[in-house]
Amino acid sequence: MCRFLAYLGEPIFLADLVCAPAHSLIHQSMHADEGKTATNGDGFGLGWYGEREEPGLYREIRPAWSDENLRSLCSQVRSRLFFAHVRASTGTSTTRANCHPFGLGRQMFMHNGQVGDYLRIKRRMEALIPDALYEHRQGTGDTEAIFLAAAADGLAEDPIGALSRTLARVLAMMQAAGSTQPLRFAAAHSDGQTLTCFRWSSDNRPPTLYWRRAGANVLVVSEPVDERTAGWLPIAANHALVARPGQGVQVQPFEVAEPVLSDL
Amino acid sequence: MCRFLAYLGEPIFLADLVCAPAHSLIHQSMHADEGKTATNGDGFGLGWYGEREEPGLYREIRPAWSDENLRSLCSQVRSRLFFAHVRASTGTSTTRANCHPFGLGRQMFMHNGQVGDYLRIKRRMEALIPDALYEHRQGTGDTEAIFLAAAADGLAEDPIGALSRTLARVLAMMQAAGSTQPLRFAAAHSDGQTLTCFRWSSDNRPPTLYWRRAGANVLVVSEPVDERTAGWLPIAANHALVARPGQGVQVQPFEVAEPVLSDL
Amino acid sequence: MCRFLAYLGEPIFLADLVCAPAHSLIHQSMHADEGKTATNGDGFGLGWYGEREEPGLYREIRPAWSDENLRSLCSQVRSRLFFAHVRASTGTSTTRANCHPFGLGRQMFMHNGQVGDYLRIKRRMEALIPDALYEHRQGTGDTEAIFLAAAADGLAEDPIGALSRTLARVLAMMQAAGSTQPLRFAAAHSDGQTLTCFRWSSDNRPPTLYWRRAGANVLVVSEPVDERTAGWLPIAANHALVARPGQGVQVQPFEVAEPVLSDL
Amino acid sequence: MCRFLAYLGEPIFLADLVCAPAHSLIHQSMHADEGKTATNGDGFGLGWYGEREEPGLYREIRPAWSDENLRSLCSQVRSRLFFAHVRASTGTSTTRANCHPFGLGRQMFMHNGQVGDYLRIKRRMEALIPDALYEHRQGTGDTEAIFLAAAADGLAEDPIGALSRTLARVLAMMQAAGSTQPLRFAAAHSDGQTLTCFRWSSDNRPPTLYWRRAGANVLVVSEPVDERTAGWLPIAANHALVARPGQGVQVQPFEVAEPVLSDL
Repeated sequence: MCRFLAYLGEPIFLADLVCAPAHSLIHQSMHADEGKTATNGDGFGLGWYGEREEPGLYREIRPAWSDENLRSLCSQVRSRLFFAHVRASTGTSTTRANCHPFGLGRQMFMHNGQVGDYLRIKRRMEALIPDALYEHRQGTGDTEAIFLAAAADGLAEDPIGALSRTLARVLAMMQAAGSTQPLRFAAAHSDGQTLTCFRWSSDNRPPTLYWRRAGANVLVVSEPVDERTAGWLPIAANHALVARPGQGVQVQPFEVAEPVLSDL
Repeated sequence: MCRFLAYLGEPIFLADLVCAPAHSLIHQSMHADEGKTATNGDGFGLGWYGEREEPGLYREIRPAWSDENLRSLCSQVRSRLFFAHVRASTGTSTTRANCHPFGLGRQMFMHNGQVGDYLRIKRRMEALIPDALYEHRQGTGDTEAIFLAAAADGLAEDPIGALSRTLARVLAMMQAAGSTQPLRFAAAHSDGQTLTCFRWSSDNRPPTLYWRRAGANVLVVSEPVDERTAGWLPIAANHALVARPGQGVQVQPFEVAEPVLSDL
Repeated sequence: MCRFLAYLGEPIFLADLVCAPAHSLIHQSMHADEGKTATNGDGFGLGWYGEREEPGLYREIRPAWSDENLRSLCSQVRSRLFFAHVRASTGTSTTRANCHPFGLGRQMFMHNGQVGDYLRIKRRMEALIPDALYEHRQGTGDTEAIFLAAAADGLAEDPIGALSRTLARVLAMMQAAGSTQPLRFAAAHSDGQTLTCFRWSSDNRPPTLYWRRAGANVLVVSEPVDERTAGWLPIAANHALVARPGQGVQVQPFEVAEPVLSDL
Repeated sequence: MCRFLAYLGEPIFLADLVCAPAHSLIHQSMHADEGKTATNGDGFGLGWYGEREEPGLYREIRPAWSDENLRSLCSQVRSRLFFAHVRASTGTSTTRANCHPFGLGRQMFMHNGQVGDYLRIKRRMEALIPDALYEHRQGTGDTEAIFLAAAADGLAEDPIGALSRTLARVLAMMQAAGSTQPLRFAAAHSDGQTLTCFRWSSDNRPPTLYWRRAGANVLVVSEPVDERTAGWLPIAANHALVARPGQGVQVQPFEVAEPVLSDL
């Protein structure tokens, strides 16, 4: 099911959230509490905005808990906006290219959830990606396919609208393929300025997602990295959180349009 | 460009060809003589038929020259029919799933060459693969796409006919996409009984391919593993070699049909 | 803490024990029941005797549960005597050279347990290894050090006597270094003919070890690979099991000599 | 033989030297001109000083030429003092722990060269390392052994004196072991302030080492990263270069004391 965290605020060392807390993301890679699986050992990734417009990416197939490079990098890199993700594969192979976050120009994206019967609709999902973006596809997983499809749906300009449209298309494909499995979607997106996080599912059982604010700093996590009593708020099912530097945090309903079969 | 070898004959230890000769495939991983690149360090693979109908596969992203597992495996495994391949990427990433040989049920396949402007026609090539086979696609490269497309074109029953048809389709896609680059194709296929090897290109510059016979044993290589004077015969451009246990070796013309634009 | 299995008997495919059972060793790599840690994701290894005097070794740093090569190899290789091991590091880094089993000529060896305060006595343990064997040290862990030290103590000829002597020396070093931690030792050794397994600790809490016999076949495991009611016998603490083809199984007391401080 | 570069000066992106130049270090990983081997594909490493006293380290076993993480990291990280190294193993295995640079507190160290008959004197070299430092040994190679031994010889306070003493001890061990092979040593050391580079050998054939100054910026390389005519100066055999921020560059003789056999 994967576990992730996303941070926006004053520049901090990645280690402060990824490595140091009692239930840090590295700890969650072996001992997650709230996911379907306790072990998230099928690779991991970091993405962070620094001095460049494009984010830095470090993705690796080893488990996060034993990666010396991850610890060193997190202790060195300071960022105002970063993602970290530990992966539990739902079927696709363990390659760097299948690890989150994914990057495309200024944007990055990560996901925790599942596309029911993905293999049966994989090619149809890929058909949503225009040729110019299809060249960027390096992995084989569902998340990258959603990301590139949403990029074509206007993700950079309107993350909420784009993912609403893209997920509707994916849901329609699942239904057309006769899938009885759910589409579950906890995700984070950024363009280097705005952080948008999503919690949605087709079966009212979306993956967990929490957030916390401290001054101007916002943290969104699959599960709390420290005491549960420490101010964590769940993001309600079928809602999105939008945070921008200096503009506070909004949590708003997130709806996926009804599947439009004519789309197929 | 990659280097490979294929063996059919009396069961021998893989090490006898992969590790031991002066210019063994492991040696070629760092010091190839006849390829476009001397270094073939972007992963490697072994495939062998043993007691099962399906071949065993060992594919790894490290360079072959430093892989302890490869040496141990080659010294233990004895096979009557096996492939070995060292990879020089032409652009796709270095993952196990992009390493040769590829397996599909009883069949295995490996390739040395290039599909000109592959990224521009990647999706169209993938569209040649029927849904049931598309689920087996684990990598992102051109060879796996050709293999699965050819599987749909009858590869198991008629390797030469199927690849003639599939390459014609790929060539038509390249031309439709305005590619001025060649399609080059040295490849080996087996179903566990018959070994079929191909040497073809659209520009009269196919990758090198040699063969040698010793008694009932047939060896096909990208470049000789020992002295050039030791009985190696080049396979002529646009020819295929077919070997079956107890039935000798045939080398015959291999033609790719004219691109059929209506196919697109 | 690691989990392992050792088999001696009629040649079988490794997959029959490593992959297929409900609680197979691959399953234990993520969901061990009886170890200190449920996750054994810090690499794994196979060792098997085939047609050569030396065993084959396949060791890899990925978790066993996601390794395609492991599954393919286990489905192809048939052996009369093999070891398999999934690793949970107690501190040393995740490298192939630190994965079990270890090989030395015809012998192989694997271990589940710990040497208390290993880092403080590491060099003294290494001093037990004669120069000629020290050249074979490729990793940095305690198990390889015990193996090579025991090789110098006569492991090939007398596994029980040699390990009794070597563990006594290690225990003396721990005591001289003021360690209050235990020495725990569940292990397996073979020379290609005899299988010897050990269950011992300095604190009466040795790692679990079970065995089962079916006809001439003997299986020794850290924890049962199938139903607990299926005939598994625990090996008593401070005992060793010796099995030879055609000669049945003996379980006998295993004593470690009192630490001899003059040894230091 | 390995290739490396070391930079001290105005903070720059690592990519400016590691990735961008025509004959960048990444290019040298496949196409070195002046080393004993053209291919340096047995792992690589980066070390850089940022906001912490300790350097960041990124070391990986893949070849540098295909590592996406390396490119991303180099495009993001800006540093006033950094090392980069591509490795060609002289025998020890390809693990992260054997990749350069090595770190110890504030110090880092990397090397290109060889210790003749290292395996025969490995343990004696390790005996030069005091217990407290021996705990930091994570790999098995000669460079890490020299680094930790020199740390005990005063490397932090007096790099030139310490390495003169340590190399003398190593040379004495080689001679005592009857080695007829040379000790060759091109190396770089820093404590986060001073950069010290060495070029020395016991046989008057030290590995190449060049340097160039542009304003306050100093670059030291195994071989030029751009045009040979672009101001590169060879460091003379048996000399050391010392650079400190704002204090210019000194090149001075570097002598290794006569082997002192009583040391052994």
